[in-house]
Amino acid sequence: MAVAGASGYAGGEILRLLCGHPRLRSGELEIGALTAGGNAGTLLGTHHPHLLPLADRVLQDTTPEILAGHDVVFLGLPHGASAVIADALPPTTLIIDCGADFRLRDAGDWTAYYGGDHAGTWPYGLPELPGNREILKDASRVAVPGCYPTVSILSLLPAITAGIAEPHVTVVAVSGASGAGRSPKVDLLASEVIGSARAYGVGGVHRHTPEISQALSAAAEQPVTVSFTPILAPMARGILATCTARTTATGAEARAVYEKAYADEEFIHVLPDGRLPATGSVIGSNAVQLGVTVDERAQTLVVVGAVDNLTKGTGGAAVQSMNLALGWTENEGLSTVGVAP
Amino acid sequence: MAVAGASGYAGGEILRLLCGHPRLRSGELEIGALTAGGNAGTLLGTHHPHLLPLADRVLQDTTPEILAGHDVVFLGLPHGASAVIADALPPTTLIIDCGADFRLRDAGDWTAYYGGDHAGTWPYGLPELPGNREILKDASRVAVPGCYPTVSILSLLPAITAGIAEPHVTVVAVSGASGAGRSPKVDLLASEVIGSARAYGVGGVHRHTPEISQALSAAAEQPVTVSFTPILAPMARGILATCTARTTATGAEARAVYEKAYADEEFIHVLPDGRLPATGSVIGSNAVQLGVTVDERAQTLVVVGAVDNLTKGTGGAAVQSMNLALGWTENEGLSTVGVAP
Amino acid sequence: MAVAGASGYAGGEILRLLCGHPRLRSGELEIGALTAGGNAGTLLGTHHPHLLPLADRVLQDTTPEILAGHDVVFLGLPHGASAVIADALPPTTLIIDCGADFRLRDAGDWTAYYGGDHAGTWPYGLPELPGNREILKDASRVAVPGCYPTVSILSLLPAITAGIAEPHVTVVAVSGASGAGRSPKVDLLASEVIGSARAYGVGGVHRHTPEISQALSAAAEQPVTVSFTPILAPMARGILATCTARTTATGAEARAVYEKAYADEEFIHVLPDGRLPATGSVIGSNAVQLGVTVDERAQTLVVVGAVDNLTKGTGGAAVQSMNLALGWTENEGLSTVGVAP
Amino acid sequence: MAVAGASGYAGGEILRLLCGHPRLRSGELEIGALTAGGNAGTLLGTHHPHLLPLADRVLQDTTPEILAGHDVVFLGLPHGASAVIADALPPTTLIIDCGADFRLRDAGDWTAYYGGDHAGTWPYGLPELPGNREILKDASRVAVPGCYPTVSILSLLPAITAGIAEPHVTVVAVSGASGAGRSPKVDLLASEVIGSARAYGVGGVHRHTPEISQALSAAAEQPVTVSFTPILAPMARGILATCTARTTATGAEARAVYEKAYADEEFIHVLPDGRLPATGSVIGSNAVQLGVTVDERAQTLVVVGAVDNLTKGTGGAAVQSMNLALGWTENEGLSTVGVAP
Repeated sequence: MAVAGASGYAGGEILRLLCGHPRLRSGELEIGALTAGGNAGTLLGTHHPHLLPLADRVLQDTTPEILAGHDVVFLGLPHGASAVIADALPPTTLIIDCGADFRLRDAGDWTAYYGGDHAGTWPYGLPELPGNREILKDASRVAVPGCYPTVSILSLLPAITAGIAEPHVTVVAVSGASGAGRSPKVDLLASEVIGSARAYGVGGVHRHTPEISQALSAAAEQPVTVSFTPILAPMARGILATCTARTTATGAEARAVYEKAYADEEFIHVLPDGRLPATGSVIGSNAVQLGVTVDERAQTLVVVGAVDNLTKGTGGAAVQSMNLALGWTENEGLSTVGVAP
Repeated sequence: MAVAGASGYAGGEILRLLCGHPRLRSGELEIGALTAGGNAGTLLGTHHPHLLPLADRVLQDTTPEILAGHDVVFLGLPHGASAVIADALPPTTLIIDCGADFRLRDAGDWTAYYGGDHAGTWPYGLPELPGNREILKDASRVAVPGCYPTVSILSLLPAITAGIAEPHVTVVAVSGASGAGRSPKVDLLASEVIGSARAYGVGGVHRHTPEISQALSAAAEQPVTVSFTPILAPMARGILATCTARTTATGAEARAVYEKAYADEEFIHVLPDGRLPATGSVIGSNAVQLGVTVDERAQTLVVVGAVDNLTKGTGGAAVQSMNLALGWTENEGLSTVGVAP
Repeated sequence: MAVAGASGYAGGEILRLLCGHPRLRSGELEIGALTAGGNAGTLLGTHHPHLLPLADRVLQDTTPEILAGHDVVFLGLPHGASAVIADALPPTTLIIDCGADFRLRDAGDWTAYYGGDHAGTWPYGLPELPGNREILKDASRVAVPGCYPTVSILSLLPAITAGIAEPHVTVVAVSGASGAGRSPKVDLLASEVIGSARAYGVGGVHRHTPEISQALSAAAEQPVTVSFTPILAPMARGILATCTARTTATGAEARAVYEKAYADEEFIHVLPDGRLPATGSVIGSNAVQLGVTVDERAQTLVVVGAVDNLTKGTGGAAVQSMNLALGWTENEGLSTVGVAP
Repeated sequence: MAVAGASGYAGGEILRLLCGHPRLRSGELEIGALTAGGNAGTLLGTHHPHLLPLADRVLQDTTPEILAGHDVVFLGLPHGASAVIADALPPTTLIIDCGADFRLRDAGDWTAYYGGDHAGTWPYGLPELPGNREILKDASRVAVPGCYPTVSILSLLPAITAGIAEPHVTVVAVSGASGAGRSPKVDLLASEVIGSARAYGVGGVHRHTPEISQALSAAAEQPVTVSFTPILAPMARGILATCTARTTATGAEARAVYEKAYADEEFIHVLPDGRLPATGSVIGSNAVQLGVTVDERAQTLVVVGAVDNLTKGTGGAAVQSMNLALGWTENEGLSTVGVAP
């Protein structure tokens, strides 16, 4: 197993999870090449001092040569960098891409939101989508969903599928700063983020918008428009997505739809009536917690979803997809227990 | 001037602003009785160590007798406590109530959301509502708006008034913890709040919902339904409200509506195209910053408003109302400059 | 296995670790009674929503009757409550107390710092103390160290033992808020803690002072005086202790002393020269990271230690002690991998 | 008045204070050129959205030509950049430098800690040093103290001057992230800083060490060695410095020394016995709060000082120095009231 982009947050989270994976202890999983861009040649411990067992590993260059020879390759690269790597690796290599390159099906969406040419579409690493688990079991390429889409889709999917929500949804999602990656930028400095909530990418321009719409439209078998507003909050991890849509269902009806939809999903928890999710409950875990409510006066379904953007929102989904594609138990190395407080 | 509830956050913020009020320096304003409930008998400095000039003031009991004899009385009391005090003070005393008791016009709304009997309706301390400034100039009783309603109403008012937004609005507002007051509760402990975003009062049950609806419905001259979801984020101050409504307007049209509506409002700033508000820009200031955007693909107006819940959201509105009611310049002692970073 | 005080932070952390303990999966460890004081009768999930697998467990009353019949009982109770429970349980029950009652050897210290009568002294749950691991292997009673003492002692022990530091040490330790427990208090509210660093217990009055002194004096075979200042910082978990003492050693000499002292300690990591610890690197892990430096100009040894106060500082030490006392491998269920960022 | 480096944190804070300065309202103070390096040509509002009245000001290049013609020039530049500017401006221009270039008296210290040649020594902008206020009244050049030295010196000065503390002091200072400036760096990203306390510059290597020693040695009339450890905590503003030294004085004696020393200092507040400082009490204010304690058992003086690193620690000291040098009242535009919570 190799990780390209190991000094970033996605790479670090994948490695954190793999360090606790039972197949590592049993020797079936081995942590091979760890690569980076500008950080190549340095020790992993200088970038991820929390990964003590790997502290002395030297980062290599991110090249197909170095990644070749691994059965599994995780990619935590900037958008646009994955295709070149993927093309140079054998088709039998299991490549799990945490970037956006292969998430969208519609080339027009790709060009509109990311610019340039569409690289293609890979199986989407969200096993909880209907029918998707079987696809992932046979996959040798996986596009891990975006962090916002993961929680937004899971928060709205049952209602959209059941037809109890209008096909126009509003998502306002509060995220910690790690979702923006580890490249230094002034507006991600601690001094700017601490003590402040800030909107960005407002007005339908955030790149995760078509990804949310794509999954919900497929479930609805009709176009679902999405108004998506991301908000940066002073925390390192976690997304809390407030998802609303007009509905005529009652709260009890809506809750029943969700409980049935996710009854067999280990990582998706519909909270009991009267309890509401907090990102603090899922930090480091692969769980998604959902609070399902209907404001009957305003005829509005309000589903609040909490996820750790780095775990179920990125690295956990990557490991979950790997487990499926390798024929292992889906939850190996993944936990539903968060670190709190 | 007296402050009842001086050891709480609303009382502390009023005192912070009054310490810098030019009429204090000129002697026209004098800080008289400071009262409290359980904290009576203790020094203000033990509760508000940031108010150095008042550190040695002893808190007295909150009784009509102690508050009597002051021309202006600010009330920062738990809901339900204001009416008794107000009834016992002369009608000429300017009473500025930061509680909810006198905000709602509809007795049914009061009973539905707060329980018990409606105490009445006072002039609403939001001068930026059409026609309201004149009412406040003659007022001897003022109900300071709730913090969430302040920013939600100001974010939606121009669009609703101009008829460019459908009369069903969705507000998702991220707030710092000070909005919940200073009574110790487990779920407001630092350990619970830090590192977590948490929804509460979901599904139309938050008490600020009818207050938002009341103001918008008056502006629209038709009922405006409000889906309101409050979210607690790990910060002490500030509210960022993401307000959405279906629209057929373009972004340019919407922006023009807002710029015109607030052209003469010193405290309301419509940000230039491409800039979005952050609560970090308004901490300690009486300003509201608005980002006005239309997602034309999703035909959705998205207005994001930032406010300091304790300043313009409570204490600043109280001082602004006092200034108006006493015939002083509206902005005295209030600033549009925040403390950042 | 039972946990008394399961709704508090110590109890929650023990349960978090036990949920991932390999002996739970193998069936050798079973989570039995979970008890509480005022929270008895409620669901664990309302207090610890991050412990999904245990969410539906009902909290029972903390009584000897309910705790009896368990081979292992963890106590996460207020100081002074453990003795009564312990006395009522059989001497063969392994009792692991996260409270202070049985930590101090000197009855005078107990009375001076805690008041009342000294309950006794139990084996001290810090296996890294010389000779202590053997004692813990035979123990049926364990007093888990305080969180500040854990990191302070481990940061200074090698230097004191080797005699390269004067027996007067200064510890300034920055802690997250969870160390103060979960009882609601005004000065622990998020609004008070966020955005502020605050000293408390200054001047030698903090109860952990004699505990630090006790261990260091034993190692030095002479009295070691400790100036200890705790500081509350706006974070939920973690302690960073800056420990200084006069020295004539060079940096290289000091580092060699530490590397040798901890060469065989899995959970204690002396960082390479040029790297300094951060609490963010040990969150959720049982690791202690130490940065060892000498300011040769000022002839001062400066050792900075980072620990998660709830893991190695409380719950992890409890599990580590349990593992030893039950004859299991010391590190089972414990990780040296933190959750970062 | 001009500000060079107006898009940084020091420049922003100076402008924040000047916006509220009474001489601005009276017209005696005028905000002239605002300059920057890489940000020249952009609007101030894009960098400091909290400075609403100046939002539309265009940043100019930092050149002597643009700064010439202003009676007062504030410099908030990287270390090493001030001398060139200063040399090109007339000797009568009041230059107030927030950088380090002119703070140290000893050229050897400069070279050892900063490298390169010493530019010289200017009057030190800490009016509270004995005799220094008179020097500043005549100054046309002022070196504003470093943020850590400000609070460390003020915390230790009375004890050192009175000879009640040994001339070897230990300072452990917890700082918010703004002290590190606004240049983007990975280790200052919000994701890295939030949830973590981290030591840096340990072992006597931090550049503020000789500055602290310089002032204390002058006061003691003998060399005072300083062990200084800075710690980064997850907050934007504020420094809490825990300063210890061996003493034979009692707590009452020490407190008397401090109360007498600062009796006439408006901005220095020795807290009453039993109260301890928090940075949250001084945010945005020019006040320093000191808690003075003696651990009589350990014969150690522990003085904890709290300051806002950007206000009294930088911009406030700059304005205070300007007021003195221009013959205005020292406290104009400066407040002892903080923004809390």
